[in-house]
Amino acid sequence: MQLRNRLKLIKKTMQTHHLDALFITQREDIFYYTGWKANDGNILIINHQKPALFVSPLEQDAEKIRHVNLIYLKRKEDILKELKGLKLVGYDEYNLTANKFSLLHKLPIRLKKASELIKKPREIKDSWEIEQIRKAVSVSKKSFEKQKVYGKTEEDIANNLEASFRLQGALTAFDTIVSSGSGIIHHQPRKIIVKKGKPVIIDFGARFNWYCCDVTRTLVSENKEWKKTKENVSDIQKQIIDEITPGIEMSDIRKQYEKLMGKYGYKIQHSFGHGIGLDVHEQITGKLKEGMVITVEPGVYKNNGGCRIEDTILVRKKGVEILTKQIKLD
Amino acid sequence: MQLRNRLKLIKKTMQTHHLDALFITQREDIFYYTGWKANDGNILIINHQKPALFVSPLEQDAEKIRHVNLIYLKRKEDILKELKGLKLVGYDEYNLTANKFSLLHKLPIRLKKASELIKKPREIKDSWEIEQIRKAVSVSKKSFEKQKVYGKTEEDIANNLEASFRLQGALTAFDTIVSSGSGIIHHQPRKIIVKKGKPVIIDFGARFNWYCCDVTRTLVSENKEWKKTKENVSDIQKQIIDEITPGIEMSDIRKQYEKLMGKYGYKIQHSFGHGIGLDVHEQITGKLKEGMVITVEPGVYKNNGGCRIEDTILVRKKGVEILTKQIKLD
Repeated sequence: MQLRNRLKLIKKTMQTHHLDALFITQREDIFYYTGWKANDGNILIINHQKPALFVSPLEQDAEKIRHVNLIYLKRKEDILKELKGLKLVGYDEYNLTANKFSLLHKLPIRLKKASELIKKPREIKDSWEIEQIRKAVSVSKKSFEKQKVYGKTEEDIANNLEASFRLQGALTAFDTIVSSGSGIIHHQPRKIIVKKGKPVIIDFGARFNWYCCDVTRTLVSENKEWKKTKENVSDIQKQIIDEITPGIEMSDIRKQYEKLMGKYGYKIQHSFGHGIGLDVHEQITGKLKEGMVITVEPGVYKNNGGCRIEDTILVRKKGVEILTKQIKLD
Repeated sequence: MQLRNRLKLIKKTMQTHHLDALFITQREDIFYYTGWKANDGNILIINHQKPALFVSPLEQDAEKIRHVNLIYLKRKEDILKELKGLKLVGYDEYNLTANKFSLLHKLPIRLKKASELIKKPREIKDSWEIEQIRKAVSVSKKSFEKQKVYGKTEEDIANNLEASFRLQGALTAFDTIVSSGSGIIHHQPRKIIVKKGKPVIIDFGARFNWYCCDVTRTLVSENKEWKKTKENVSDIQKQIIDEITPGIEMSDIRKQYEKLMGKYGYKIQHSFGHGIGLDVHEQITGKLKEGMVITVEPGVYKNNGGCRIEDTILVRKKGVEILTKQIKLD
């Protein structure tokens, strides 16, 4: 992990925006900037000196973390001490509690929404990060390919997949979706047995060293209607992916997705994909660059089921690499 | 689940505090009041009519939820519509993002911290809730008792336990702690092999239907020093538990814990325990009552290791039932 580089980069951004400090409260951001697998309630303050990392007095493991002033958080006033005398402080508006936000208002400092700035460096993955995502893919692949589907309940399939992630030392990137014969997009697995004849969406992803991958496969067995739909969705996905290369923007991909879905006569029911990394849904701003990782997941849903195909994709110098390509389609 | 009763109870509290609505943003609270296993970003507004449940347009599963007005959240302004004309609205200060907090400030309403009020009904568990905790205990017991410890790494033990929870249809209540020969209280599992001769703390708990249990066992093999410590910690725990009965307060138990630890010559390094339920650490206010569930977890830590014994305990009409009693001590 290139922690020093990351800190250098974010400090430069702070200078550009005249920020004296960033008040960082998302566990994933704290991990990104310090290497500490943060717990709820931990805080990282990046200022122009050595960053301050606040942890609970029970979390003495954090003493191994270098390049920070480690502070055991006992009274919330200790946080204010660290910010005293500063003028402009950026905070993560999506990951700061109202309670801590009110606390910050006790100081005569100006506060600025800074979620986008804080997460900006995370958009481009370095080689170590890509390696972690590859491991998440490898765990996901092994778990999926040994999984029996027909004859099991939706719930059992989700449980088995996630148990398999854990046995391989990984976590679960998001609640696994197993949806048989249902047109609900974020379907919660039920205790019903999955049978041939209906399409079965399985949307899953392991999280290795906190790095996520996200894959969806749809099994259609011998159902003619859904076999055809799957061919179309697969064609649409391929054509979208073919367009992806450094220099284009997420909004360009969206336009291409809308055009293709229209051409095949399908209505749009969700976005085409998203950035991914330490979060399963992660910010991407501006033009795509080498080292960014996104998903592409066109989907078609009707009353009797749905079909979605999703892959996790790395933007290369030219074009892309489909990281999840080896996970078989059926 | 007694959803109607819960709503009735909270509406009565709202009347007492002149609250026109509660703005509920913790997933566990939404589940508690509606039965909907909420996702991040969901919102429940309880007013004096039918509660409003906001979910993503992708979460059509929520249509099965009764007794609510289901609203698909498309623009954040839709939230404001629901609050228009109200005077005093309570919010959960620990589970509301700064971003949504700022949004609420756009309306001419008074806002009041209400986390304690919102969670108050959760303190006493009904019979269905206790049943879920019992199931979490049963899953935890099976997973722990089949687990080989010596010769495995700390990480492998944690992974195996959590995979076993998942295979039994449960989740993980909190990151499992496996700590061999370390005096760190919230220790993160390492890739080192656990060997006899050092004390090994295993702090674990499954989560069934979102209800948690929390257990710690310490294996001391034939280490004389730690065998003695374990006897003492076990004695201390028993004496604390003997004092617990309806009518006493958490602060009374704390005093008893401090007295006992002092008597045995140990210093206090963390609190004696906590409320538990939908959250692994849950609020308990005022006097203990029948149906409350807490943990008791005295612990002693030195440079060469630690010993903690923790059980999940149900307060009965008189005295307690130790729900995790059947999980063997070594």
